[in-house]
Order: sequence, then structure tokens, then C-alpha cells
Amino acid sequence: MSQAIVDARLDDLAVNTIKFLAVDGIEKAKSGHPGLPMGAADYAYVLWAKYLRYNPKDPKWPNRDRFVLSGGHGSMLLYSLLHLAGFDMPYEELQKFRQWGSLTPGHPEHEIERGIETTTGPLGQGIANAVGMGMAAHRLSAIFNRPGYDIINHWIYVILGDGDMMEGISHEACSLAGHLGLGNIVAIYDDNCICIEGDTCLTYSDDIKMRFESYGWHVQMIDGHDRAAASEALAKAKAETGKPSLIVARTIIAHGAPNKCGTASAHGEPLGPDETKAAKECANWPVDKPFYIPDEVKQFFSSHAGDLRKEYDAWQAMFAKYKEEFPELAKLWTKMMDKEVPADLDDQLLAKLDCVKPTATRASSGSAIQEIAKSVPAFWGGSADLCPSNKTDVKGGGDFSHAYPLGRNIHFGVREHAMGSAMNGMAVYGGVIPYGGTFLVFCDYMRPTIRLAALMKQQVVYVFTHDSIFVGEDGPTHEPIEQIASMRMIPNVTVIRPADTAETAVAWAWALDHKDGPTVLALTRQNLSPVNDDPAKAKQLRKGAYIVRDAGKIDVVLIATGSEVGISLGAADILAAKGINARVVSMPSREIFEAQDKAYQDSVIPPSVKKRVVVEAGIPFGWEKYSGDEGLIIGMDRFGASAPYQVLAEKFGFTAQSVAEHTEAYLK
Amino acid sequence: MSQAIVDARLDDLAVNTIKFLAVDGIEKAKSGHPGLPMGAADYAYVLWAKYLRYNPKDPKWPNRDRFVLSGGHGSMLLYSLLHLAGFDMPYEELQKFRQWGSLTPGHPEHEIERGIETTTGPLGQGIANAVGMGMAAHRLSAIFNRPGYDIINHWIYVILGDGDMMEGISHEACSLAGHLGLGNIVAIYDDNCICIEGDTCLTYSDDIKMRFESYGWHVQMIDGHDRAAASEALAKAKAETGKPSLIVARTIIAHGAPNKCGTASAHGEPLGPDETKAAKECANWPVDKPFYIPDEVKQFFSSHAGDLRKEYDAWQAMFAKYKEEFPELAKLWTKMMDKEVPADLDDQLLAKLDCVKPTATRASSGSAIQEIAKSVPAFWGGSADLCPSNKTDVKGGGDFSHAYPLGRNIHFGVREHAMGSAMNGMAVYGGVIPYGGTFLVFCDYMRPTIRLAALMKQQVVYVFTHDSIFVGEDGPTHEPIEQIASMRMIPNVTVIRPADTAETAVAWAWALDHKDGPTVLALTRQNLSPVNDDPAKAKQLRKGAYIVRDAGKIDVVLIATGSEVGISLGAADILAAKGINARVVSMPSREIFEAQDKAYQDSVIPPSVKKRVVVEAGIPFGWEKYSGDEGLIIGMDRFGASAPYQVLAEKFGFTAQSVAEHTEAYLK
Repeated sequence: MSQAIVDARLDDLAVNTIKFLAVDGIEKAKSGHPGLPMGAADYAYVLWAKYLRYNPKDPKWPNRDRFVLSGGHGSMLLYSLLHLAGFDMPYEELQKFRQWGSLTPGHPEHEIERGIETTTGPLGQGIANAVGMGMAAHRLSAIFNRPGYDIINHWIYVILGDGDMMEGISHEACSLAGHLGLGNIVAIYDDNCICIEGDTCLTYSDDIKMRFESYGWHVQMIDGHDRAAASEALAKAKAETGKPSLIVARTIIAHGAPNKCGTASAHGEPLGPDETKAAKECANWPVDKPFYIPDEVKQFFSSHAGDLRKEYDAWQAMFAKYKEEFPELAKLWTKMMDKEVPADLDDQLLAKLDCVKPTATRASSGSAIQEIAKSVPAFWGGSADLCPSNKTDVKGGGDFSHAYPLGRNIHFGVREHAMGSAMNGMAVYGGVIPYGGTFLVFCDYMRPTIRLAALMKQQVVYVFTHDSIFVGEDGPTHEPIEQIASMRMIPNVTVIRPADTAETAVAWAWALDHKDGPTVLALTRQNLSPVNDDPAKAKQLRKGAYIVRDAGKIDVVLIATGSEVGISLGAADILAAKGINARVVSMPSREIFEAQDKAYQDSVIPPSVKKRVVVEAGIPFGWEKYSGDEGLIIGMDRFGASAPYQVLAEKFGFTAQSVAEHTEAYLK
Repeated sequence: MSQAIVDARLDDLAVNTIKFLAVDGIEKAKSGHPGLPMGAADYAYVLWAKYLRYNPKDPKWPNRDRFVLSGGHGSMLLYSLLHLAGFDMPYEELQKFRQWGSLTPGHPEHEIERGIETTTGPLGQGIANAVGMGMAAHRLSAIFNRPGYDIINHWIYVILGDGDMMEGISHEACSLAGHLGLGNIVAIYDDNCICIEGDTCLTYSDDIKMRFESYGWHVQMIDGHDRAAASEALAKAKAETGKPSLIVARTIIAHGAPNKCGTASAHGEPLGPDETKAAKECANWPVDKPFYIPDEVKQFFSSHAGDLRKEYDAWQAMFAKYKEEFPELAKLWTKMMDKEVPADLDDQLLAKLDCVKPTATRASSGSAIQEIAKSVPAFWGGSADLCPSNKTDVKGGGDFSHAYPLGRNIHFGVREHAMGSAMNGMAVYGGVIPYGGTFLVFCDYMRPTIRLAALMKQQVVYVFTHDSIFVGEDGPTHEPIEQIASMRMIPNVTVIRPADTAETAVAWAWALDHKDGPTVLALTRQNLSPVNDDPAKAKQLRKGAYIVRDAGKIDVVLIATGSEVGISLGAADILAAKGINARVVSMPSREIFEAQDKAYQDSVIPPSVKKRVVVEAGIPFGWEKYSGDEGLIIGMDRFGASAPYQVLAEKFGFTAQSVAEHTEAYLK
């Protein structure tokens, strides 16, 4: 291995270019984190100049290497590299770091068109996204590769820091990656011993090598400023294909800043004009030319792009031949990459599922999953160790593992947070519509990942079962009260709480059609009877809410979701016997309903009818929007309790009788 | 070490009693998890019969050993042990497992009076609670122990399972415990190789010994059914006082069930009558006497309680002498155990803080913390690596560590989830009012622990800074939009978003007075000017909402929180110039306001005034309750963006001018 990556002088120039682009961007913004870009520049340059395979002109190339900056606060490192590498990241944008409307926000925001694979910043998410990418790549390579045709054989490279390492999600995700033997992941840990509060020794003394070996990783330790060592370690990491690799790169934060290097203040504050000048002087860098890029550096990256282009062209030529030789696989490829879903999936599912027999919606969902798995090859998922309860398994689909990457069923383990983040990684990777299950109450464990799916507008489907106090015996720790509302309020998230088997079928079809945001399916533990005489009526779920029982002159509108729709229908019967006319509205999804035009909304909930009762076995918070000033909300304003669910229904007033009584009293 | 713990025959009888009480409870409930109680009975018996120090007649004895069943689904194990040990857990209650109103719910619910130290069930929480208990014990022992007076010298014992081990929070908490060298923690890992989906090898292959050694723990491996080995390991674990100890107990799930042992089905389903009978026959146990407790077993536990009583009496005698010898420390002890707070803390803080100068409420909070630390010795906390931003440090208070347990400042590391759970452990431990800081958006990382603090009604204070889009440059990943509302909806949680320094002072005093639930303080990054001419008016925060600017004839009521109160006051000025009379209401806490009588509520927001505008830089969801059918909500219905905060204020309409314009347009 030669000492120089390209040549020693050029290497120095390029590393300093990366460092000072970052420094200048942060100086100009008067805000940002210079420590990581400066500390990581040496090995990041080696990675980008020698290992990373990409084509800036086709940033979506499926066999590109993925690069994830898990420590997203070092965003200027990424922006600088993307600019140098020729991605659509104009020079002027580097000068608009952290400004309104710029392409260079404070933390990297998913935009594959510009080479930004995923949104990072919330710590630990990048490395866990990478695990999802590694899983997806492993699966796709098994489906598509054939002798002589390595359609998918790239790596996923990650840079992560102390903060990522301390977050529980990194433990979960790396334990899972080790378990699955994801040899396509190469992570570089920027071990700079500095966190925001000071030296990491204040808080952190994991033996990282031992820790990662305990997860089954291949671990190497290097001096992160020794570029030859970094190159050698990267080569060895790639050679280890049966295990994920960690390179522990010991670095000095803000390397090159003569007075601030190695200090906590360099983590999250601009260097300031004096230190910037001093750093540039030390590096023989022009102090009067901010955002300076030497011509040699430009030329090197341009010529390197040319070399990479040859690899890209070779892959394209191979792929063209592959499509001829394996036309069926080529069709499957397109289907998966397009995340294709049959246009008539609603009807298929309604036809296949028994929509009459009282069934728990989690079981109806399980039946739907069997059918979807047949017709949607991109559909892939599992559960966080609750598949017998969540009914998420594809029967006969096999278990995904290193030895059997074709497995349709992912066993995420009791790792909800890593599951959520891995699903985000799969979604942005491509070729996968990921789904994952747990008890609804434990959505709290993965909430940061739901937010990120929403922020990135990714298609991810959550199968959250046991969706109310009707969990019963497990008691309040396992009974969601506030969770459904808490997800409804996240922008871009769609929550669907179906009322019966037919609504569950349509909910699944809707979720699979919905490409630009995550969908939450909230499903029952207990059996539910159909709410419509004709299952086809459930297709109105695509409007978010609809009338399931009408009345001539409407005395009151009962608005309910999920298991409370059937209860409300029962209440309407009781009220009818007393001469009170109740319209019953099933509202499986507020978000979908709110996307309809006002005329439709008013046709379902007439503005003139002020007597409205909302029935949902969850927190009343937020239902005032539909109950209105004169309405009544029948909800849960306390935690649940441990008892058989029928007892809880009585005690907490979620029976037809109780709803009818409360409604009658309210109308008086 | 003798083979027998007490005597071999009695040991067998006792272990079988524990097993079959659990089995019978679960059979009767037709619901529950027999696998863990049966698998753990051997070592759990050893622990309770030989090591655990307690007094069932004084379950709050401060120097008792703590026992935490982190795998809360094994609750019948705990209930059986509590009954045998003589706690207030009547025999009849064992027969009402998982029934309405019983003392034996599905998962253990915090009730120290009955020996239940903490609520468990959500996996990983118990072990992380235990870390908080260990930290609190370490601190209290340093404050109070004197030569010859070991006031606090007990252990914290934990049983945890595979699920706990897989959860990220267990990694975070155990990494922290190892870092802090918490030698008072002894954890037994029930390594039964079975999770809900089947064999743990489906999902999990951590080398647990290596993993825990990498965190700095002392680790032993035993056969979990070898009682002598368990006893020896417990003795060695106690002898290691510089490190937390893990005993990896290899067990067979549902040990003693001849056909179901070692299977996933034994994890979460009753054994069924046939297998119950078969198990009892194998053990020579009467099959026709459910809930059978042999007299010898009763006698043993009763006599053991007598032995423990002697230790307890000796401690009480020592403590009586201690109080005489160290009267100042005795006073401090009472103050801390009572979590005492000065009655006039409001006034103290208002007097000490500069309530005039425009200040970020996070900085005002930081100033308040300095004062509180002086007068509230139980007050103890830190930050998840953001103390320079959260302003949570007590200046000159020193850093808490193994070497300096008197340290006032806890460095939790980038471990929000473990921080939340450790705070819960400290709160239930006693003598501590814990507080912890992070950015508000990252409350999502610790949400399960906020829920548990609420469920257990514990006094925990969250210092969540950077509370809106006014975070600015860091961008949408760091800008909370939905978080404040998402916490308001958790039962028993009080969210306070103060509008200036004076309100921040009163908010802190309120939080410290509020003993039966957690309080969230939502604090700004940016400076805020005072909203009242007289700081004393901020004391009205204790009513949740109050008038900060009144109008004669009210044309419109502007209701705002936090930083938007000042903006609304500015808007009111602009409106006044146009002849529009706006009352401005500061509503720092909805929860506190809703606890006031209706007359007060109506005096602040007159029901007759239907023209209302709510202004909060967060999701509108849930504000309809206050805006009413005819109102306007000025909020954020999308994620934020990266830019200087003043730019975001303009772009998103959170300026006085914009609020005035929207209000004027709305009134027309």
C-alpha cells in the first residue's frame, strides 16, 4: 500500500479543501459544527477518493455505494464532498449554509437527486438506517444476482460519532447487523473523545472494540489522520463479507485548528475569524479566499468521476445483457424498483378475505398480508418479536437471515427503535415497501423514526396491534390511550384505524398506494363484527370517513373509529328504539378525511348538526375539532387497567348501552 | 458453600411453591406468562431466602435492598414472593391475578407499600430504573454515611430477560452504570434463549459476557437451576463493589413443565390444565390443591422475616444514635426524604432573577437552578450531553462520578432514554427530585419513560429547551412542532411553557411543589422580553392561564404560550391602533388551567367571546378546545426549516405584524 492515496501533495490539498469549505460555510452562517468535518476530512477523503462508487450524473444508480453521515451535524463535510464529487450541489449553495431555501440546511435532508441518501441529525439514526439499507441490499442481491451478474454488490459506508455510539438505537441496530452478518456495511467511528459537555470520559467508557465484537462485528483500530492506514482498513473491511465492519478512527476534533482542536467548543460553534485565519496559515492556505478550491483538486475529482464512470458504464452494459438473459427477473426488478402495487388490490383483498365472520382486525391484517405478499414483491417486513400477536408473518415465506436472504419474514428482535429506523433505511434504499409490527403502545419506543419517515415522506407501513384498552389483562403499561392521537399530529403521517375486516383490507391497499409518507395501521386484539352489510362499502375508507348508518332527520351524529364503530352502531339501535335518530360515521382516518373537499366533508358531518358525539377509546385531546363547541367526546382521560377486556368495556363505558345512555343524557 | 440454601428438601418445596403459585394464578386468569416465573424460581428463591434484605412491616425502610423485576410480564413471580415474604399481598389476591381492582395486575405497578418498587412491563425500563436507584443510593451513601454509620449500604437486585437485553435502553443504561462503577447493582439475566417469536437465535446473538465487560461490568455465568451456584455468584457479585455485576443465569423457560419447558408457547400462554397437572405430578405436588403453600415453606419465610427483622432493628438503633451524633445530617436526611421545598420559593426566585432583561427562558431556568440547588438538597440532575445548551448545570456543584458521588451534576451522556428511566428510578428510590435536560424535540427519544413517570405519578422535572422552530439553523430535525402537544395529552403530565423569566421562575417553583406527577418545562433558545410590568404577576402561572393585557370591550381574545405571548402582545398593540380591542391571555399550562374552577376559567376566557385566536408555534392539533368553533389557530402544520430564527418567524408568520394581520382578516 503506497503512503499516498493519489499523490501526497494532492492528498493534502484535497483534505484541506474539504476542511476549509466546511469551516468557511460555518463561518459565513455563524452557526454549525466545524469539529467533525475537520477531524474526519482525512479518512473521508480516502473513502471518497478511492472506495466510494457513485455516478453524480445518475445519483439514483441502484448499485451505487451508499454513504451515510450518521453524525448529521457534520453536514458541511457531506456538502463539500458532494460538490467536489460533481453532484448537483452548486458552489453557491456551500455559501448559503443554514439559510432559508438553500440546498445546504443545518442537517442533511434526504434528497437522493443530490446524493443525500437519508436525513440525519437525530443521533443514532444514520447507522440504523444503514442497517436497513444493508438488509435491503442483501435481500435484493439474493433475488437478482446470477453467476456473472452481480447486479447488487455495493457497500454501505457510514461515519458515526460518540453521540451515535451512546444512543440505544445504535446498540440495537448494530446488534441486529451483527446477528444478520451484514458484510456490506462498513462503518467508521470518529472517535474524537469529545462530546458537547466536554471530554467523553465524563460520560462514556465503553470498550468499543469489545462491544462491537460482542455483536459479531469485525473491528479495526486506526489513527484517523493516517490516510494510508485508513485506506488499508477500508480494504480489509471490504474483504470481510460475512460480518459488518467497524473502523475505529482515533481523531482529533477540529484537526488543523491550532488552538481549538481537541476541545468541546470546536464541536458546535464556528471557529471564529481569528482561529479560521490561524488554521489556514498553518495549512498554507490562502486566508483571503474563502471557499477556495485549488484547480488540482477540481481536476482530480473530475478525473476520478471519469474513472468511476467506467465502472458505472460496465454495470449498465451488464444490466442490459442481464435483462435480455433473464427477462422475468428484469420484470421483477422493475416491479420492485417501482414499488408496484396491483391497481385492484382493494377488490382482490375484499374478495379473498372473509369479511363476514367477526375477526380481530390484527387477524384480518394477517390475512391481507398473505395476499399482498403474493402480488407485491417489494413488500417486506416483520415484527419486533411480536409476530404471533401482530400477525405480520408471511406464511411459508421463510425467515430472513444471512444464510437465507430470500426470507420474507424479518425478525427484528425486541428492538422497536432499530426496526423503525431500519425500515426508513429500506424505504430510501429502494425496491422495498417495508412494514413492521409491534404493540401500538410501543410506538413510543420508535417515535423518533416515525417522525423521520414523515419528514422524508417515505412509504413505511406500521402494523400496530392491540390498539386500545381492549388489550385487557396486560394492563395500563400495555394499553395505548394517547398513542393514536400522538401520531395523528405528526405532519405527513396517516393513521388508519379500521372498524372491521373489510376496512382493514382497504386500509392496507390505501397504505400500499400511498407512496409519499408513512401509514400507521391501528388494529384490534379483539374480534369485531362487520360494520357494513356490503363489504364493498368499506372502499369509502379512501375518503377517510363515511356514513355507516344514516337517519332521516338527524338528531345526533355519532363519529367513531375502529372498534368503537360497532359499539356506536349498537348505541344507535338503542337510541332508535327511543325515537332518537343517530347517524353513525366511521372515521378510520382523520388525515384522509381532511384531504377531501369541503362538500364531501360537510355531506358526512353536516355543519348544521351541532349535536355530535365522538366515540374513541383513547384520549379526547384533539377531538374537539369534530365534536365542536356543543359536542360530546366519549374517550379515556386516564390510563387503563388490568382486567378482561369485556370488564374494561363496562367499567370505562365503551358498550353500546353506555354510549346510548351518555348520548341520551347529553341530548337532554 | 453448602449445596442447600436452607435445607435441600425445604429448598425444593419453596421453589415449587413459587412456581405453582405463579402457574395457578395464570391458569385461573387464563392469561399470563408462566415461562419466566418457572424458569427463574430457583435463583429468585435463593435471592429472596438468603440475600435480599427487607422488612415487610416497613416496606419503605430506606436501607432495604431494592428488587426490580425488569421482565414485568413475570409478575406472578413477584406477587408470589411478596406474599411468601409477608408483604401486604394477601393470599386471595394471588387468586385474582389480572382482574379488575385486584392487587395483582398483569404487570407490576409501583406500590412501595406492598414491596413493588417500580412499574415494569415495557421492556428495558426495569434495568434502567435500577441504574437510577443505584445512582441515588451512591449519592445518598456519600452524603450520609459516616465511619461506623452505614446508613445506606444496600444493593439493587434486578432480574431481566432477553427482551430487556435487546432494547436499546438496556444498552444505554448499562453503559452508564458501568461508566459510573455502580457496584451496588446486581443484575441476573435470565438467559432462557426463548423469545415470543421462538428461539432467540432467530434475532439475537450478542456475546453477553463480552458485551457487559465492554461496559465495565463484572460478569459471571451460571446454570440458573443450580441454586448453590446462584448463591455463590450472588456472594461474589456483592463482593465486587467497584463495578455493577451481571450474573448470566442459563435457564430453561417454564422449568418443571414436562412438555412445554423450553418452548416459546410457555412464554406468554397459560400452561393449560393438562400440562399444569403433569408439571405438578412431576414435582410430587398436590394436583387438587391450587395455590398450595406447604406449612414448612410458610414457616421458613416467617422465620426468615424474623432474622431480617434483627438486621432492620440494628439499623434503626444505629440510625437513632446517628441522629443524635449528627443532628445536622439528620435534619438534612428528613429534608431530602420529604423532598422538601421552601414555601416561598416563588418569591425567592423572583427576587433573585433579573426579570427585566430580555433573556432566553432556558437561561432563566439556568439561573433558577442555581438558586434551587442551594435550598432544595433533594434536587439533583443533569443533561443528556447538552448542559451548555440546556443550562442545567449547578455551577461549582461538581460532576457526579464513582470517585465523586457528591457531584451535583449528572452527565447522562447522549442517552435520553436511559436518562428518563434513571430519573424514574431515582424518583421512586426516594430522597431525590430528579431533573434532566435535552432539546425538546428529543423528548421523543425518551417518551416511554415520560409515560411511566406519569403512570407512577412520580415527581420528575424535564428541562426541555429549544422548544420551537425558533431553534433556527439546526433545521427541521431539531425543531419541535408536535412534541409539546404530544406530551400534553399524556394523563398526569403537566406541561409548562413560560413566556419570560418571571414565568420561568414560577414554573420551576410549581414543578418542585408538584409531588404527584412529572412536569415538562418547555424553554426557548431565543431571548424573550417580560410580558408583565410587574414580575409578581407571573405568580398567576399557578392558575395555568391569566390575562396579561386586558381590553375594555373585548373584540378578540388572543391566547398564547411561551415565546408567542410577547408576539401576541405586540399584535395587540398593532390591533389597538386600528381600534380593535384584544385581550391577551398567557396560557403557560393547559393542565393547570383545566384544574381551576369554571368561574376562574370563564373569567380568563369569557364563554361569550367567540372571537378567539390561539397563537403557538406548534401543531394546531388540540387547540380547537380553546379556539372554539368560531376561532382561529395560528400554528405550524408542517415541519420547520433551517434558517436564522428571525427569518423563520417571518416566513412562518410568527411576528406581531403577521399575527395582527391574520387576526384582523379573521375578524372581518
